[in-house]
Amino acid sequence: MDLNCDMGEGFGHWSYGDAPDEELMEIISSANVATGFHAGDPMTMDRVAALAAEHDVGLGAHPAYRDMQGFGRRAINATSEELVADILYQVGALEMFARRHGIALSHIKPHGALYMTAAKDRDLSEKLVDALQVVAPDTPLYCMGVSETWQVTQAKGHPARREFYADREYDATGAIVFARKVPAFDPAALADKCVRACVEGKVRCTEGHDVDVAFESICFHSDTPGAARIGAAIRAALEAEGIEVTRAA
Amino acid sequence: MDLNCDMGEGFGHWSYGDAPDEELMEIISSANVATGFHAGDPMTMDRVAALAAEHDVGLGAHPAYRDMQGFGRRAINATSEELVADILYQVGALEMFARRHGIALSHIKPHGALYMTAAKDRDLSEKLVDALQVVAPDTPLYCMGVSETWQVTQAKGHPARREFYADREYDATGAIVFARKVPAFDPAALADKCVRACVEGKVRCTEGHDVDVAFESICFHSDTPGAARIGAAIRAALEAEGIEVTRAA
Amino acid sequence: MDLNCDMGEGFGHWSYGDAPDEELMEIISSANVATGFHAGDPMTMDRVAALAAEHDVGLGAHPAYRDMQGFGRRAINATSEELVADILYQVGALEMFARRHGIALSHIKPHGALYMTAAKDRDLSEKLVDALQVVAPDTPLYCMGVSETWQVTQAKGHPARREFYADREYDATGAIVFARKVPAFDPAALADKCVRACVEGKVRCTEGHDVDVAFESICFHSDTPGAARIGAAIRAALEAEGIEVTRAA
Amino acid sequence: MDLNCDMGEGFGHWSYGDAPDEELMEIISSANVATGFHAGDPMTMDRVAALAAEHDVGLGAHPAYRDMQGFGRRAINATSEELVADILYQVGALEMFARRHGIALSHIKPHGALYMTAAKDRDLSEKLVDALQVVAPDTPLYCMGVSETWQVTQAKGHPARREFYADREYDATGAIVFARKVPAFDPAALADKCVRACVEGKVRCTEGHDVDVAFESICFHSDTPGAARIGAAIRAALEAEGIEVTRAA
Repeated sequence: MDLNCDMGEGFGHWSYGDAPDEELMEIISSANVATGFHAGDPMTMDRVAALAAEHDVGLGAHPAYRDMQGFGRRAINATSEELVADILYQVGALEMFARRHGIALSHIKPHGALYMTAAKDRDLSEKLVDALQVVAPDTPLYCMGVSETWQVTQAKGHPARREFYADREYDATGAIVFARKVPAFDPAALADKCVRACVEGKVRCTEGHDVDVAFESICFHSDTPGAARIGAAIRAALEAEGIEVTRAA
Repeated sequence: MDLNCDMGEGFGHWSYGDAPDEELMEIISSANVATGFHAGDPMTMDRVAALAAEHDVGLGAHPAYRDMQGFGRRAINATSEELVADILYQVGALEMFARRHGIALSHIKPHGALYMTAAKDRDLSEKLVDALQVVAPDTPLYCMGVSETWQVTQAKGHPARREFYADREYDATGAIVFARKVPAFDPAALADKCVRACVEGKVRCTEGHDVDVAFESICFHSDTPGAARIGAAIRAALEAEGIEVTRAA
Repeated sequence: MDLNCDMGEGFGHWSYGDAPDEELMEIISSANVATGFHAGDPMTMDRVAALAAEHDVGLGAHPAYRDMQGFGRRAINATSEELVADILYQVGALEMFARRHGIALSHIKPHGALYMTAAKDRDLSEKLVDALQVVAPDTPLYCMGVSETWQVTQAKGHPARREFYADREYDATGAIVFARKVPAFDPAALADKCVRACVEGKVRCTEGHDVDVAFESICFHSDTPGAARIGAAIRAALEAEGIEVTRAA
Repeated sequence: MDLNCDMGEGFGHWSYGDAPDEELMEIISSANVATGFHAGDPMTMDRVAALAAEHDVGLGAHPAYRDMQGFGRRAINATSEELVADILYQVGALEMFARRHGIALSHIKPHGALYMTAAKDRDLSEKLVDALQVVAPDTPLYCMGVSETWQVTQAKGHPARREFYADREYDATGAIVFARKVPAFDPAALADKCVRACVEGKVRCTEGHDVDVAFESICFHSDTPGAARIGAAIRAALEAEGIEVTRAA
């Protein structure tokens, strides 16, 4: 099972997240790296790419709405063409740092509100997958299982990975509840939630009953309070269950 | 002889330059495309990349200081490492649009004040060429003949092209006189200046005497008043002299 | 009748609009000046404030979403608190240039998508008017007649002016049809539309019948093709009807 | 003696500085508040203005170069006119939040590289003071004692306060040594340095001998490691010496 986490979400003098990138690199198998629109200046991207290469962690692009002020967690009602162009711009930028450090991009995952918009917007998902099939035909797109994005990747035959979110709530449709800020969590509870999702394919939703979840990667956020402890707890719990954390498909 | 011109220097609703990009594409052999820091939003980069592919014009990255307000014509005293990271970010972004339209980047040319800073700053030129030898070893770097940048490319064996500037003044050292704004020019006079530079290897400097110039490309700017007429006049004058305009080395 | 127009919508090297600001200043009674988030750098704001003072034209703040790429014509789903803070920031910035040139701000008018969002969002309109009653209690807020913004100003007793849009379509509710780009218009037809709206209080909507309109100001946009001719035609037609163009209430 | 500190230097999701603003407000008499160009989004400016009003701390504008990436610690070679316009824009923006919370701006202090540029650039200092004499004739400008800025305020009769920098080194001219990052300091040593400067008017420079310093305010930075402890130590040491910390002149 792949374990992914956002990373490199500082900008210039500002750092972000509750754990040092180096520490998280020891825990995860895939990093989603901010690409400059919501966070992530070029120096930071370069440094995180070097870290990913050193730790053999997958280096994924994490493109976002152009929204530094809102950290990419506010939707902008741009056209699909504008958003696809914004995404390609950001993916290309990170690819250059991957190349500098001798690796290839491992995946692409839109960030925050852009991820949620694409999940519901078939036109955007289609235009995005069409573009990726030209520029990055072998690079998996990360998405929610309950999303237009996933449907489109399957219809068009583009590689994709569905995610399970350790530190987000699920609604009755099996979609996550988007939040601009999250509370503190108990690492052990999140780890149990992940193991159950892996073993039983189920998660308790906000309405109190179980919903089915299918996924190929587990995500937690580096800005969730206690991120490193959460990630370590998830990894330990998975391994105790005999589930290896690996970026391999 | 290669004939290059800046292009795609609008941003969002703003356009820039004295001639439509389509018209200039008929005249030039290489385009220097703004990559988002001084100008050039992703939609524009996508459109210009498509145009370059259609016209078989070289698509070059034109990275700049992060300075939308000053159009990249104001130096920022950043470190060489910061500037190299900024350049790689921008080059990667444009490369993605090149790939989308089935072409490769033809060259890299820093814009405005960044070009002039690199010309005088050996440390920046060295760190830039070191990085390009990793990520783009076969992509020529455009530079002034009288510059640290040119010296470094020769010392390190990186492909480079020196430029002759049709619409800029030359000082007694053979360097151009940097300007944030330029006056109107007589296209015929600029064409004569270019032909003379090609044939005799000389240009009249601001102190009134001739200086030697050696170059592999001629540059004019799309924001110089009358850019299309200037470009057409230069091309016609070169062809009348039997000098073919071609991006081939 | 007040006649208002957007102005100062360039940024740095980019200019915008179909007519020089100087020419428009001769035609209008109130200018809505871009305040740096969708357009309008400080040098431009300073220059337009000087022009407004010189021509005795009302200098109004035209705050927008933070969206240079989309020219403030794309909504961002920020909180009302964020948007009010963004608006106060921009209004304060322009007020400083007004003071530099010896005048006071004449009005405040949100730009583009922010104007349309406020028109439908009672919470935003209320929080904005609450804030303005503290910082600018005597400065009129421009808005659509058919809007929450107008309703809120009336409920709270804040000065306001309703606008009639010369160069926008009206729907059957009496609201304007928002557009990111507009076509070319016949100046005479727009002038007739304005005179009819002034005299009869009616406009033909997109569904083909008349709707009532009530307003204290007429707006046209400086980026509508032929803006100066449109503005001059409107002013001439109003004056021929005995309607004086004046910023006075 | 006035004790001032930078504040509000986050942006959106990013916070900055080694101490919570609330804690620092208990220690200082004047706050220099980031105004959006190097840091400081409108929501943060609003919050810090409310805190300053609550704690009766002077609210000063801390305008900077437009440089989010470099935190305003990189000079941009703009014209004096551009920089003055940038400063006025930022000062006006903060003034609006001051007014919202019932207070007036207490002072203006350029940030980082802009402060250092003005210190050496008589033309910029003159144009800035000329502008402030129109828009804020009674608002003191903070500056170094050894600077063109101080000289110009004295020549033109504009109120000003010279600063002593607790957490910066001094060179033999009595100017501070500018740094993009600073090391950790011993609070007690900095407190002793401040008391000695107050009592003897001397500071040990980097060349090992004493230089004279004259000042009306002491500055420390909120991003210096241990800022709150440093500030508290300075305040306690001053008070032990009978020197009251007060924003009053």
